[in-house]
Amino acid sequence: MMIELKPHTDRFAFIERLKWMGLEALVVGEHRLIIVRGVDKNVHLERFIALPEVAAVLPVKEKFKLASKAVKGQTIIQIKGKTIGGSELFIIAGPCSIESKEQMDFCAELAHAQGAGGLRGGAFKPRTSPYEFQGMGEEGLKILRDAGAKYNLVTVSEVMDASQIDMVASYVDILQVGARNMHNFSLLKELGRVKNPILLKRGFAASYQDLLLAAEYIISAGNPNVILCERGIRTFETHTRNTLDLNAVPALKELTHLPILVDPSHGTGRRSMVLPMARASIAAGADGLAVEVHPNPDRALTDAAQTIGPEAFAVMMREVRKIHSCLEA
Amino acid sequence: MMIELKPHTDRFAFIERLKWMGLEALVVGEHRLIIVRGVDKNVHLERFIALPEVAAVLPVKEKFKLASKAVKGQTIIQIKGKTIGGSELFIIAGPCSIESKEQMDFCAELAHAQGAGGLRGGAFKPRTSPYEFQGMGEEGLKILRDAGAKYNLVTVSEVMDASQIDMVASYVDILQVGARNMHNFSLLKELGRVKNPILLKRGFAASYQDLLLAAEYIISAGNPNVILCERGIRTFETHTRNTLDLNAVPALKELTHLPILVDPSHGTGRRSMVLPMARASIAAGADGLAVEVHPNPDRALTDAAQTIGPEAFAVMMREVRKIHSCLEA
Amino acid sequence: MMIELKPHTDRFAFIERLKWMGLEALVVGEHRLIIVRGVDKNVHLERFIALPEVAAVLPVKEKFKLASKAVKGQTIIQIKGKTIGGSELFIIAGPCSIESKEQMDFCAELAHAQGAGGLRGGAFKPRTSPYEFQGMGEEGLKILRDAGAKYNLVTVSEVMDASQIDMVASYVDILQVGARNMHNFSLLKELGRVKNPILLKRGFAASYQDLLLAAEYIISAGNPNVILCERGIRTFETHTRNTLDLNAVPALKELTHLPILVDPSHGTGRRSMVLPMARASIAAGADGLAVEVHPNPDRALTDAAQTIGPEAFAVMMREVRKIHSCLEA
Amino acid sequence: MMIELKPHTDRFAFIERLKWMGLEALVVGEHRLIIVRGVDKNVHLERFIALPEVAAVLPVKEKFKLASKAVKGQTIIQIKGKTIGGSELFIIAGPCSIESKEQMDFCAELAHAQGAGGLRGGAFKPRTSPYEFQGMGEEGLKILRDAGAKYNLVTVSEVMDASQIDMVASYVDILQVGARNMHNFSLLKELGRVKNPILLKRGFAASYQDLLLAAEYIISAGNPNVILCERGIRTFETHTRNTLDLNAVPALKELTHLPILVDPSHGTGRRSMVLPMARASIAAGADGLAVEVHPNPDRALTDAAQTIGPEAFAVMMREVRKIHSCLEA
Repeated sequence: MMIELKPHTDRFAFIERLKWMGLEALVVGEHRLIIVRGVDKNVHLERFIALPEVAAVLPVKEKFKLASKAVKGQTIIQIKGKTIGGSELFIIAGPCSIESKEQMDFCAELAHAQGAGGLRGGAFKPRTSPYEFQGMGEEGLKILRDAGAKYNLVTVSEVMDASQIDMVASYVDILQVGARNMHNFSLLKELGRVKNPILLKRGFAASYQDLLLAAEYIISAGNPNVILCERGIRTFETHTRNTLDLNAVPALKELTHLPILVDPSHGTGRRSMVLPMARASIAAGADGLAVEVHPNPDRALTDAAQTIGPEAFAVMMREVRKIHSCLEA
Repeated sequence: MMIELKPHTDRFAFIERLKWMGLEALVVGEHRLIIVRGVDKNVHLERFIALPEVAAVLPVKEKFKLASKAVKGQTIIQIKGKTIGGSELFIIAGPCSIESKEQMDFCAELAHAQGAGGLRGGAFKPRTSPYEFQGMGEEGLKILRDAGAKYNLVTVSEVMDASQIDMVASYVDILQVGARNMHNFSLLKELGRVKNPILLKRGFAASYQDLLLAAEYIISAGNPNVILCERGIRTFETHTRNTLDLNAVPALKELTHLPILVDPSHGTGRRSMVLPMARASIAAGADGLAVEVHPNPDRALTDAAQTIGPEAFAVMMREVRKIHSCLEA
Repeated sequence: MMIELKPHTDRFAFIERLKWMGLEALVVGEHRLIIVRGVDKNVHLERFIALPEVAAVLPVKEKFKLASKAVKGQTIIQIKGKTIGGSELFIIAGPCSIESKEQMDFCAELAHAQGAGGLRGGAFKPRTSPYEFQGMGEEGLKILRDAGAKYNLVTVSEVMDASQIDMVASYVDILQVGARNMHNFSLLKELGRVKNPILLKRGFAASYQDLLLAAEYIISAGNPNVILCERGIRTFETHTRNTLDLNAVPALKELTHLPILVDPSHGTGRRSMVLPMARASIAAGADGLAVEVHPNPDRALTDAAQTIGPEAFAVMMREVRKIHSCLEA
Repeated sequence: MMIELKPHTDRFAFIERLKWMGLEALVVGEHRLIIVRGVDKNVHLERFIALPEVAAVLPVKEKFKLASKAVKGQTIIQIKGKTIGGSELFIIAGPCSIESKEQMDFCAELAHAQGAGGLRGGAFKPRTSPYEFQGMGEEGLKILRDAGAKYNLVTVSEVMDASQIDMVASYVDILQVGARNMHNFSLLKELGRVKNPILLKRGFAASYQDLLLAAEYIISAGNPNVILCERGIRTFETHTRNTLDLNAVPALKELTHLPILVDPSHGTGRRSMVLPMARASIAAGADGLAVEVHPNPDRALTDAAQTIGPEAFAVMMREVRKIHSCLEA
């Protein structure tokens, strides 16, 4: 339930009053509150409309509240002169794993030259097997930070545990929550207390509602800058690594005001499919992409099969821009 | 295994000779055969290369042979002056169920006016419950035929059983196999003996390989004109009716020469998602669309929730054409 | 909606009267009707209770009606002195494909010796690829009939198309609908007009409701003797051929009165898992099993990986009987 | 690759020697090592067999090594006089959430009276929504500890984050990793350094291999006492909360030596299905169960729909014991 307050109402006094009534409310705008706990079938809208401070009451049926479209039209995130969620595309490019300074400098230069605003690279890798390459760690983050700084790119890297947050945040702009951690509620809550935008990847068996409730954990803990990312779900089809679910784009656009990116690299697991699925993502209405790019994809330490090289990346950037301009016309 | 014959070889005599060796071969071009039965690990390529009639031998690893990309670059179907699988988009529009002459005339005029080449309508409906509307039957097919004839549209309707084939084929141009019948091998084999192109919809739990083997049933029985159609698969996500799997488009484009359409109506089950997913389908490389359109969608007897009206259809046609022209540029 | 009629009411006159009111009703007992078409939100229960012929009105919320538990406690099928759906286990054993008289005689003797009541064997095989072994056809059915007759076993074989029904029914006792044909509504309707019990296998992406609606097609067309069979669904897990869904057993037992068998051979695709999953099926409450058995499993023409041999079958029979006796105690 | 060393070999010196060769090995028995990193196609078995310290070399093809059946027959965990993984059943009972001392004392007495060895209760709840009850926290753990102590029961509770491990371990015997955290690799690694057995629940979209690799994270970090728990996967079927995958039991029994429990409460989400699926779990070969039990299930704060009461629990215990005794006979 969302409450529109009359002008000049003291919001915080009103929130106290609600608390006294057994309800918990969060501020969602200068004159708006949303009640997130305590509303059940015994609570009637009419009782609230009768209160002198209340201008209007709107039901919010979804279990997610702050992430709901009912609350806001569109979240637009401004960072380093780039815009995420607005009329421009935001493309994040870079390797699965940070491997060396040369590799990251190459990717940063390429991203910059092709007009991508974000640079990604994994320093802590959530590997299915404990015996696989686990990433360069903090050393890698320094390389990422420096490569990004050279070309004024927004840097993105994954944080795997609440204890890493401050350290990773000291190097990178956007903190990524991987698909395998989308239900790690301890991590989500702790990400609510940082200022960095969060790139929240959909778990591979998470429904749209699960994804939005994961975002709700972060927002309700204090950080409104959540960027959603579709990256494929598990289905019976084994030809592709995952089944990239582009329905998520228009479905989420109806449900939430948060920006939505698509990762066609993990979503397909196949290099040759990245280009057509990148185009399709933008045509479906995505706000941008996260793509795995490597100077020499065949030598990538991780995710080689789905990583594209510099030429393919240049073609992709040109084609998605063309699609995007169609949509705006 | 595919065999390239030397010029002036008698193909049929050679096929007889293979038969005598315990192998069954099918003709796939003027100088090409494909061996579809009898090749196992005891059969060596070298033995065939040594035969005097043979110019070259190529392995075809897939279980599907005639549908394989190895055999042919692209199947282009010409019908009523329209092209399916070539450089033009082929859009099929019309209601889920044929309900009346007025309804079909309206749809035919709309399809024609907006540049769609195909008119669809169900006369025999595969309904999950025996108590739901089962379609107008042959009466409906006459209405479809007449409406299509007025505007020179390619007509499309579903055939549910081998015993219906001749009757349905006497009224409509393209025979549709519904998702629930994709594994009905008796029906598939019988469709091999008609001349009409077949619109083969992917079963909702069929892998890409399953779909191509279903096509192989039709082609190997004599009908090469198969058009594939992605229409969504079953996953854990319940927000949408199905999960439209656009990965199927580039994946199938790599595996087969058959044209590929997408049905964003069944694929999403939601009217508001038809437009963005139609755009995404074309951006992914689909050869066209099959879309449920009704003069008054809210009154459609079946599939109302996913059917769009005339204005939304006009917008969709304009937008997918724009996307398509980007791809050609 | 189910209507309990007062004694001495003329059921057929009452059905006519309902028809005149725009409703279609089916008889489900001496004094009971179920309305299967025409009930919508404008139809009120009270109107029916007020009718002089009506003793009581019961809502049947499910989309399936005749298959619903509301209609009947338990369907028990008696055939050749065996009972399906009652207190005895009904076990169907035999090879995937009928290959020879010797093979079937061996299986029949084995089934008989171990106390299995049914003998199965495929004569028409629904193969994913057109180039795989398609079965012995009618020749095979004769072998099956003769082998079954020798030991008074109930014979079971698949019918793939409506046109085959009469022929197959002239040889075998129970007609099987394969998982790939569960949505072949033309076939289901035609099976409504035969007397043979129907073994209806769950489609590999069919929900419980889908399965019961498929049964409803057969029952509403006149054949009440439907036996359900769980045989595994498609999931993301690839270690097993399918994911045998034993939840189906207690879930269906609550929803329907039809007998339920389980097929642990197709359900797992692995010989070593047949025994434990057969035990689990019975412990979950299944009325019996359908198991692939072959004199020499490694030489089976089809499904070799999931077929067990005579010794393993004997162990399985002994162990499932022990489990079953626990349940009765 | 597993290496059997000759008697009297200095294992640690040999591990150093392997390290120098670029390989990492772990000890898996008095005379056995397993090489977990560095083996690729350039490494030949023969080179190792030729080493003077080596008695035999065995390939271990699975990606998981220490969890593999190749390494060990069966892990048996002894705790508080109870045995997990041996010939006795190990049943864990208790509410989803710890709510009060009275509730936990009741459950402990019930568990004890019925012969269950474990007492469960959640103090930190991984809830999909941030606005749902999050558990009593440390206060709840004290209640659990005290209730368990009174009846000498093995206590089990979930740990959601690496930072909680030491605190939770100070109160409970077995630390549970919930399905949503199965891929939380930071948590898994940290659990490797405690002595408590770990109850590792299968993620709802995790393959058997994923589950075993998650166990491998814990074991390779130093804690060999991992207990696996099947609790249902996400499929297209929505009648049940999850699809309990009992194939997991025999499949995992072939792949690993770790004990396997089944949770029929989360696996079905329906109270009425707990009993039959509990029986089926034991018949499939599970080493025990984890079941949600509450003094008054309808009043449970969480998971009420799937929680059983004292009478149903008593019936379940009696029936599963009967099934279990059949298996041993």
